[in-house]
Amino acid sequence: MNEGRIRHTVAFALVHSEGSAEERDFLGAAEGLAAVPGVEVFELLSEVSPKNGYRFGISMEFADRAAYERYNEHPDHVRFVQERWLSEVTDFLELDYAAL
Amino acid sequence: MNEGRIRHTVAFALVHSEGSAEERDFLGAAEGLAAVPGVEVFELLSEVSPKNGYRFGISMEFADRAAYERYNEHPDHVRFVQERWLSEVTDFLELDYAAL
Repeated sequence: MNEGRIRHTVAFALVHSEGSAEERDFLGAAEGLAAVPGVEVFELLSEVSPKNGYRFGISMEFADRAAYERYNEHPDHVRFVQERWLSEVTDFLELDYAAL
Repeated sequence: MNEGRIRHTVAFALVHSEGSAEERDFLGAAEGLAAVPGVEVFELLSEVSPKNGYRFGISMEFADRAAYERYNEHPDHVRFVQERWLSEVTDFLELDYAAL
């Protein structure tokens, strides 16, 4: 990764049952985060390791910390967290990576 | 990601103090994993989120699960785990991602 760039990732599990319409609806809403300004290389992923309880992952990159902070404060991100994440996610872990 | 492809990631912290020669030596040895057959898109990263205690990350991709399993069983990987990882890593979490 280039100097200053940040890859923001979050692994998570949902309250919804696997393959349910509610799960699909949540994931569709999560994909909307790709449209928040500053978000690059957005990926919505399946977490497949049997060594943890997370079932999905989101990965996105920002050109720098300022872009990451603008994303965090953006109304579309704040609304997603308040209206969906807090009530539909059972467990999550955020990991942010930068060049070593 | 393409269907079948796996991104294997591990976030970790070391027993060594920050910026020490021992830390550099471990990270240099970890970079050697890039040479194990089947490893693609290898990255040794800094973990920068204040929300967790991990300090580094490794990310690598495999074309498919068979390539991932060959890596796991490869003598160079097994030796690294036995000779370095088990004694120098204090905490870690593996997350493996695939196409949703």
